[in-house]
Amino acid sequence: MIKPSLAKGTRDFGPTESARRNYLFSVLKKHFSLYGFQPLETPAMENLSTLTGKYGDEGDQLMFHILNSGNFMEALKGKEELPSSQAVPLLAEKALRYDLTVPFARYVSMNRSQLSFPFRRYQIQPVWRADRPQKGRYREFYQCDIDVIGSTSMVNEEEIIRMIHRVFSELRIPVVIRINNRKLLEALAQWAGCSERFIELTVWIDKLDKVSWETIRTEMHNKQFTTAQTEKLEKALHTASFEELTNLLDIQNAEWLQEMQDLLRIPVSEGHTLKADITLARGLTYYTGTIIEVACAMGNFTSSIGGGGRYDNLTAMFGFPGMSGFGFSFGADRIYDVMTENHLFPDSLETPCVFFLHTGKNEQAACVQMAETLREKQVPCVVYPDQSKLRKQFDYANHHHAHWVVVVGEEELKQQSFALKNMQSGEQELLSAEALTKKIATHYHV
Amino acid sequence: MIKPSLAKGTRDFGPTESARRNYLFSVLKKHFSLYGFQPLETPAMENLSTLTGKYGDEGDQLMFHILNSGNFMEALKGKEELPSSQAVPLLAEKALRYDLTVPFARYVSMNRSQLSFPFRRYQIQPVWRADRPQKGRYREFYQCDIDVIGSTSMVNEEEIIRMIHRVFSELRIPVVIRINNRKLLEALAQWAGCSERFIELTVWIDKLDKVSWETIRTEMHNKQFTTAQTEKLEKALHTASFEELTNLLDIQNAEWLQEMQDLLRIPVSEGHTLKADITLARGLTYYTGTIIEVACAMGNFTSSIGGGGRYDNLTAMFGFPGMSGFGFSFGADRIYDVMTENHLFPDSLETPCVFFLHTGKNEQAACVQMAETLREKQVPCVVYPDQSKLRKQFDYANHHHAHWVVVVGEEELKQQSFALKNMQSGEQELLSAEALTKKIATHYHV
Repeated sequence: MIKPSLAKGTRDFGPTESARRNYLFSVLKKHFSLYGFQPLETPAMENLSTLTGKYGDEGDQLMFHILNSGNFMEALKGKEELPSSQAVPLLAEKALRYDLTVPFARYVSMNRSQLSFPFRRYQIQPVWRADRPQKGRYREFYQCDIDVIGSTSMVNEEEIIRMIHRVFSELRIPVVIRINNRKLLEALAQWAGCSERFIELTVWIDKLDKVSWETIRTEMHNKQFTTAQTEKLEKALHTASFEELTNLLDIQNAEWLQEMQDLLRIPVSEGHTLKADITLARGLTYYTGTIIEVACAMGNFTSSIGGGGRYDNLTAMFGFPGMSGFGFSFGADRIYDVMTENHLFPDSLETPCVFFLHTGKNEQAACVQMAETLREKQVPCVVYPDQSKLRKQFDYANHHHAHWVVVVGEEELKQQSFALKNMQSGEQELLSAEALTKKIATHYHV
Repeated sequence: MIKPSLAKGTRDFGPTESARRNYLFSVLKKHFSLYGFQPLETPAMENLSTLTGKYGDEGDQLMFHILNSGNFMEALKGKEELPSSQAVPLLAEKALRYDLTVPFARYVSMNRSQLSFPFRRYQIQPVWRADRPQKGRYREFYQCDIDVIGSTSMVNEEEIIRMIHRVFSELRIPVVIRINNRKLLEALAQWAGCSERFIELTVWIDKLDKVSWETIRTEMHNKQFTTAQTEKLEKALHTASFEELTNLLDIQNAEWLQEMQDLLRIPVSEGHTLKADITLARGLTYYTGTIIEVACAMGNFTSSIGGGGRYDNLTAMFGFPGMSGFGFSFGADRIYDVMTENHLFPDSLETPCVFFLHTGKNEQAACVQMAETLREKQVPCVVYPDQSKLRKQFDYANHHHAHWVVVVGEEELKQQSFALKNMQSGEQELLSAEALTKKIATHYHV
């Protein structure tokens, strides 16, 4: 007998975690719906042809591949010397979803003739990555993505930023939203004379909030960036205002400047911050305009709890070019952690049932009847199913944080009444079926 | 460029399907909660040691295995001649969830010291099987399971049957619930002199609603059942009442008889049927007592839309013996099909947004403001993001089945008013922001 265990890097979500996660997802879904986003679900498995090469070499390595059914050993005949990475396509034609963006692009491309653009979808599903598990990082985790595709309008950025504020206001998490624009970073790269190494550059810039300029400078020199280039970059990224920056770069009426200034005018609620950060780069190669990142402004949590950006050609990988869009992803796991550490989940999530305890078969039958009546009124009920000592039954109700317990003993059965006990106050009263229904039904809803 | 496609046997759920599925799941969850079932989620991937051998040979063959990361070719060195089935454990240490029962048993066994029994959980998650895809059968599909474990009481059967009635009443699907008891089938096997082939026997009996007795008789003879045995079985399974059956088997006061008679007394709502069916067997080997199956009693659908049973030793496979329980599984895909074919999904599921159309930048800005106000009142809104001809914007709203459209043109902007159009009646009126809010907010909730 092997002791049962979880697969490495995976988790069970028991009753409490599930209730909290469902609450978080329901808040997200409510706001997604208010802004006209519609639900989409894609399968866990995608063809390798859909996924391979979309996430760089690292992505291909971290993907979970599904072993082909049937006689896969046949495919290896004469190829026993292949390295594992090259043998993968012989053994697997499918892999598990690595993110929600590529399946979304696949869906849009496949259904382009039925969809009406701009198409607004949300998607809340798990993704799988063979990362080395560590605290807060799992091999199965949920992504919560929204996208508007088929529109170049900046109104999409504006409305999504407004929505982000609403979501985090309702969740009671104060946030800092930083915005930047890839066109600004491109202008900067051009001015510094390293346009052709733009993507590489964004990766360096992205590290600036974790690593000092000294380190970055050294590392860039090691990678053959010139001193002139790094000095220019450093100077530009240290400017204190758009005015200073545009003067330095000798740029007027830049599109990115107008776009950023418009977004910075969006009103924010108390406790939240919306600001430009020209050192924000975001690694993903497909971003082409506005980029945003949301961090929690609470206690020890300064890490990112969401991010997104504007892209111009996402579905081109599936032969559907020229579709501009804007997407944002909420980091569900991190938001969950922030909310747990800061006690932000409502207590009411653990809506405990009314527990019915009894001293015998006939008493239990009366409980079942009463519970059915209460359920009609949307009151969740548990009838203790076995014939056990009342002491044991009370322990069970307490373990489930029961607020109300109803006891039916011989005397109550005879009188057709119910002993209702408030487990918090200890108060107890004897009630008729009617009085019990009236008293309880006002307190509950599922 | 490869044309994008779905992996064989998998599906996307677009906006309409997702909204309907969410409705179905929300009805199930509501009733699960009313009966005190708590949510549980387990990971998609389980260790092979958890899954292998739990579903028979067929199950092992239909399981989707996850190819190991790293240098898996090394593990095959010198073993190139192995048949694929024996090579699987060398290449894969994990597989995708095949059902929700085994992961549930694994969870209960792993968490036995924290849980308070009887433990009531529900679980709604996809499972994966490498079946040959065909109409209505997919390689990824959802299961919706409830279980009470750690209780031998028949009250569990009773309450779950009551719950099943409520669920299908709310979904407006009339059902026939057939119940039987494995102890009755065991008594029957003993009487017919084939106790030692009991599991095999249940498989034959299970086929009776699809295949004639003649066919079954012939096949059983081919498998060395004697004529005396099949004749006895046939005679017993054709008895018309419990009285006739118990007389035939010469059994008095059987436990199964009392259990079935108690369950048959459960009141059923109009349109539903609850009846005994001694030819119901259910294939799963772990059932030991009550078994039930639910069929839709509507039009062409006579197939099973749910089933379950009593087990005595489910968690023994993980070293936690003696835990009796009762479980039931709702067939979400079939229920969805029944509801679609019979138009049982509420129209209100496609809650369309209020669509804001406009003739220019400033008009659009007024729309954004107004939409934000309505969203405060829980009204879902879409502001057409681009600058397009009104004609095109109206087409977009129509494609989304918009009920209300608000148009802001030059004139409306000047007057700070909004032209509200009811797309069903064609009625149009000019309203102030305040009047619009009042009119719309009474119609909507997310």
